Amino acid sequence: MEDGGRQLKTDAPALAAALRSGDRAALARAITLVESVAAQHREAADALLAELMPGSGNSIRIGISGAPGAGKSTFINSLGLRFIERGSRVAVLAVDPSSALTGGSILGDKTRMENLARADGAFIRPSPTGGVLGGVAARTPETILLCEAAGFDILIVETVGTGQSELALRSLVDFFILLLIAGAGDELQGIKKGVVEIADALVVNKADGDNIAAAEAARTQFQSALRFVAPATAGWRTPTLTASGLTGRGMEDILRAIDDFVLTTKASGLFAERRHSQRREWLRAALERQLIERARAHPAIRAALPQIEDAVVKGDLPATVAAAKLLQLLFPEQ
Amino acid sequence: MEDGGRQLKTDAPALAAALRSGDRAALARAITLVESVAAQHREAADALLAELMPGSGNSIRIGISGAPGAGKSTFINSLGLRFIERGSRVAVLAVDPSSALTGGSILGDKTRMENLARADGAFIRPSPTGGVLGGVAARTPETILLCEAAGFDILIVETVGTGQSELALRSLVDFFILLLIAGAGDELQGIKKGVVEIADALVVNKADGDNIAAAEAARTQFQSALRFVAPATAGWRTPTLTASGLTGRGMEDILRAIDDFVLTTKASGLFAERRHSQRREWLRAALERQLIERARAHPAIRAALPQIEDAVVKGDLPATVAAAKLLQLLFPEQ
Repeated sequence: MEDGGRQLKTDAPALAAALRSGDRAALARAITLVESVAAQHREAADALLAELMPGSGNSIRIGISGAPGAGKSTFINSLGLRFIERGSRVAVLAVDPSSALTGGSILGDKTRMENLARADGAFIRPSPTGGVLGGVAARTPETILLCEAAGFDILIVETVGTGQSELALRSLVDFFILLLIAGAGDELQGIKKGVVEIADALVVNKADGDNIAAAEAARTQFQSALRFVAPATAGWRTPTLTASGLTGRGMEDILRAIDDFVLTTKASGLFAERRHSQRREWLRAALERQLIERARAHPAIRAALPQIEDAVVKGDLPATVAAAKLLQLLFPEQ
Repeated sequence: MEDGGRQLKTDAPALAAALRSGDRAALARAITLVESVAAQHREAADALLAELMPGSGNSIRIGISGAPGAGKSTFINSLGLRFIERGSRVAVLAVDPSSALTGGSILGDKTRMENLARADGAFIRPSPTGGVLGGVAARTPETILLCEAAGFDILIVETVGTGQSELALRSLVDFFILLLIAGAGDELQGIKKGVVEIADALVVNKADGDNIAAAEAARTQFQSALRFVAPATAGWRTPTLTASGLTGRGMEDILRAIDDFVLTTKASGLFAERRHSQRREWLRAALERQLIERARAHPAIRAALPQIEDAVVKGDLPATVAAAKLLQLLFPEQ
């Protein structure tokens, strides 16, 4: 374990300096450190975050979600390259809700982001294999801070659409794009699941070749559907656009929409307001996560758990009643 | 609040007796009591559960999931009626993952279960509107116990497929049916999300009228896809079937599959084993939920939170570091 600690270079000031100088390997190591659930990394990770906090926050955070098959990777490849062309540094992260199920990686198929991955000024963080206690999604706020401290001014965070994962993504980003395709069924794509209500732009992807007319028709339909939905952001009229990750068609319009959005919401104060409420939400999530970790490790709980669990497994004690008994050990005064 | 308490009839022994006598209104009141997050209901709910625990567990719990549009309500209506025809009492519950998003109710569209709702021996519990702290899904294990104590021997628990919700459902039921339709895209229906790996039967619904051939073709495809997937239950060969909630076609085969499954897994001991590990999982979930509630209410946390939250919102303190500071107040010894 000590070797692992050394390999991770837990010397916070040195790592912070390397990261700030633009060293992408240092950034990758820092993210690994922050994602680590090993107790001996926790303190170093917190020191690193505290050190880098003042240099963070200066990016536009863009969330991209869509059903499987919507072409997210190709779209992000194209959008990311356009941002780099105009001088930005772009980091791509994944919030992987499916890891619990499959242990799979959304960004496993990195070939679809090959151009972006090769570009100077781009950083792609594949989601690690699942199964790690605590989960990686839980650490995404900190990963965002690290990327920002390393000078990335465009953060693209992607998730596969499940209804729940979009909500998690929404609490991480400034601008949320729902990626759609023509002819795939509204409900299956999240249209009826309330996801549209939290999107700042709807983009019909794969508008290329024979599919352009169908994509345009779908766009028109989504636009009329939007008339019945309150905009996700007050004072912002959620646009519907078509684009092609394959040909790059429509990317300029998307960049312009993002620019408009940032100008509008910074002027109205909503940009800062949203970031504030997101930080409040991050605190809540971190608190719950750490609380559970601490309680599990608590001597009184560890001592009493086996017998109580046994009674629950046998069906002698309802789970809620058993839980109340256990917590009496932690909070005797309440 | 006292009136609310009285209206809920928190006299546990009387409510337990009414519920055991088959009084469906008493069952509905008991579920409302167990779902309540009001502190004054907690004790009565726990007493009720402890009283009813010995009479629970004697049902077959069937989980049904499918993408929106798969025809779940109509299917459950038809399957439930078939069970009632052969002498069972059937309760239908919903685990609603979308309530956080839309506040909507999966079973809001009760017209599609009209026949079942009218049948003697059926009990349908619509999922309440969302937004309640603690969530309803969290209380589903207890709701199942209540229905069993009330003499329902078939429990149907449904959820809309999101990838995450199926996992939650799997931990509640003995037999898990994934409902599919022809021509809707494999990935969108959960085929690539790992959901197939936890299903005990795949059923292609809407096999009626002009759609029968397409449904049969889809079934054949799913069957060959299954060759590459380990069965969800050891010693059980996951069947692929076609059915129609509309016409009742195929329901006999599904009943037979469920009967076979129960016989096989009870003989192998797997039925009991799975219930044991589910109860362990319910305990874990109850523990985490109550832990968070207790910590939120703790005086030291309440006193320190405003200032620390303020620092997080301003961007002066990373959320993880702030959370660690707060928890130091609860666990000073660790």
